[in-house]
Amino acid sequence: MGNSIIFSLDLFGTAVFAISGVLIASRRRMDLFGALVLACVTAIGGGTIRDMALGASPVFWVENGLYLWVILVASLSSVLLLNNFPTPPRWLLPVADAIGMAVFMAIGADKAYQYGAPMIVAVTMGVITACGGGMIRDVLANQVPLVLQREVYATACIVGGLVWVAALYLEFSVTIATSACILTALVIRLVAIRYHLSLPKLAKNR
Amino acid sequence: MGNSIIFSLDLFGTAVFAISGVLIASRRRMDLFGALVLACVTAIGGGTIRDMALGASPVFWVENGLYLWVILVASLSSVLLLNNFPTPPRWLLPVADAIGMAVFMAIGADKAYQYGAPMIVAVTMGVITACGGGMIRDVLANQVPLVLQREVYATACIVGGLVWVAALYLEFSVTIATSACILTALVIRLVAIRYHLSLPKLAKNR
Amino acid sequence: MGNSIIFSLDLFGTAVFAISGVLIASRRRMDLFGALVLACVTAIGGGTIRDMALGASPVFWVENGLYLWVILVASLSSVLLLNNFPTPPRWLLPVADAIGMAVFMAIGADKAYQYGAPMIVAVTMGVITACGGGMIRDVLANQVPLVLQREVYATACIVGGLVWVAALYLEFSVTIATSACILTALVIRLVAIRYHLSLPKLAKNR
Repeated sequence: MGNSIIFSLDLFGTAVFAISGVLIASRRRMDLFGALVLACVTAIGGGTIRDMALGASPVFWVENGLYLWVILVASLSSVLLLNNFPTPPRWLLPVADAIGMAVFMAIGADKAYQYGAPMIVAVTMGVITACGGGMIRDVLANQVPLVLQREVYATACIVGGLVWVAALYLEFSVTIATSACILTALVIRLVAIRYHLSLPKLAKNR
Repeated sequence: MGNSIIFSLDLFGTAVFAISGVLIASRRRMDLFGALVLACVTAIGGGTIRDMALGASPVFWVENGLYLWVILVASLSSVLLLNNFPTPPRWLLPVADAIGMAVFMAIGADKAYQYGAPMIVAVTMGVITACGGGMIRDVLANQVPLVLQREVYATACIVGGLVWVAALYLEFSVTIATSACILTALVIRLVAIRYHLSLPKLAKNR
Repeated sequence: MGNSIIFSLDLFGTAVFAISGVLIASRRRMDLFGALVLACVTAIGGGTIRDMALGASPVFWVENGLYLWVILVASLSSVLLLNNFPTPPRWLLPVADAIGMAVFMAIGADKAYQYGAPMIVAVTMGVITACGGGMIRDVLANQVPLVLQREVYATACIVGGLVWVAALYLEFSVTIATSACILTALVIRLVAIRYHLSLPKLAKNR
């Protein structure tokens, strides 16, 4: 039952990330195919790198065609809606994206854990799952990935991952560790959005 | 026999894609190594992602060294020819590229099909095989991938893929499905080149 | 014993490449997370592509968490030092980077050889291991990879690889072939740094 909740959240995150890909494609004046590609890489790019690195083969979206269908429906709908409807309230997409990010973080760490990876690798895999797709999307749109430059996004992931590690060391169940990870990452991200928090830039080397 | 025709076309597409990598490298004033890298990623980048995602390991060009030899010969020859010969007729490279694209589409879909992937995954794998390498090439040359922005290129792939799916559902043989896929993608692409067709840009979101 | 020397050099190269990622992140005014990501991709990006292509799963840094710890310590230290210390002598980082490059070249070729890959594939895998991470770093920093444009960097790798192939054909032991490869690549690279050698740019095609 816990699994089916996670799976639903996973598909929800997939749809939201796909929409964020379509929005970037539209900003860069790409065509419909560009929208589909950016939707795909944003939604499944991170998990694909994770599975390839773990040796989970085939990768998750090859095994289960549902992911690509969700992306297809979500991105075609959002392309159609782009012009024809009033814009949604400003808070809607960032909040939906934060949920997707937190869920992807937990799913990525859990999957690495199941494959017996060390903790530092599991946290890294969570971050790759949550942030990797958006980074590839930004690279294809020819811009420095947003996540490398500003906003408390990856930081929320990492703190969520540390909570997850702590919970497992304290011998809580995986379900509790996963929930704690998702909640932590989500709350930090929402607080950061609400108060426009960002990390300081690095000192400039000479 | 059908297989050896496909294999020949595969090597032909590999050589043509390698040359297109060299041309972009030359436009960006890269050096010889840049030319080799762009030749490699254009020619085998898409198929590499496909094989990694399918869990076909090692990837095709590791198993068979011939692909790298073809790329090496094709790109060294075209570097030598760049300066010393009159430019080939304008239609030659786009037409050769269209053949390579159509063949790569069919090969990618077929390979995914052999690995038991769902149809939507197989079509996606065809598109990745045909378009992925060119996208990596453009990213390395620091430009938004052409295929995301203009021209009926990926669309030709996708329609070819749909014909392939239809043929398999109608229980034609794989050979016929493959041939129909290649012909469809090729004809659409050639018509698009001839009449300068392109997809409309997306509406710009606010 | 030879193995433990190679492993130490591998970790040394990992740390040096991580620091070069931090420096680029600092130049592009990224935040701490950007520094960590660029450190990771520079240090393990090339070997990751190599292992995925060879079908060595999971990839090396998943199996052994030490790589990520080295990157974490190296990049956090260099972020702290960026502001607070006098700059190190100008020659230090390029020389350290040259050692890392030469070692990664040999490790990559050796690993492919152990997996039974053809010689041309093994040399390519060495080049991917040595140059791939820096290329991904540059792409994330939104610039054309330096290695494609100037300096005798990849060329030093390739010549090292050819020496390695020659040594193996002449039936020297793997240890000797590896050492010859490292020394050759290192010397060529150091000479190129010292005398500012670079490859000529390609002729510009019309």
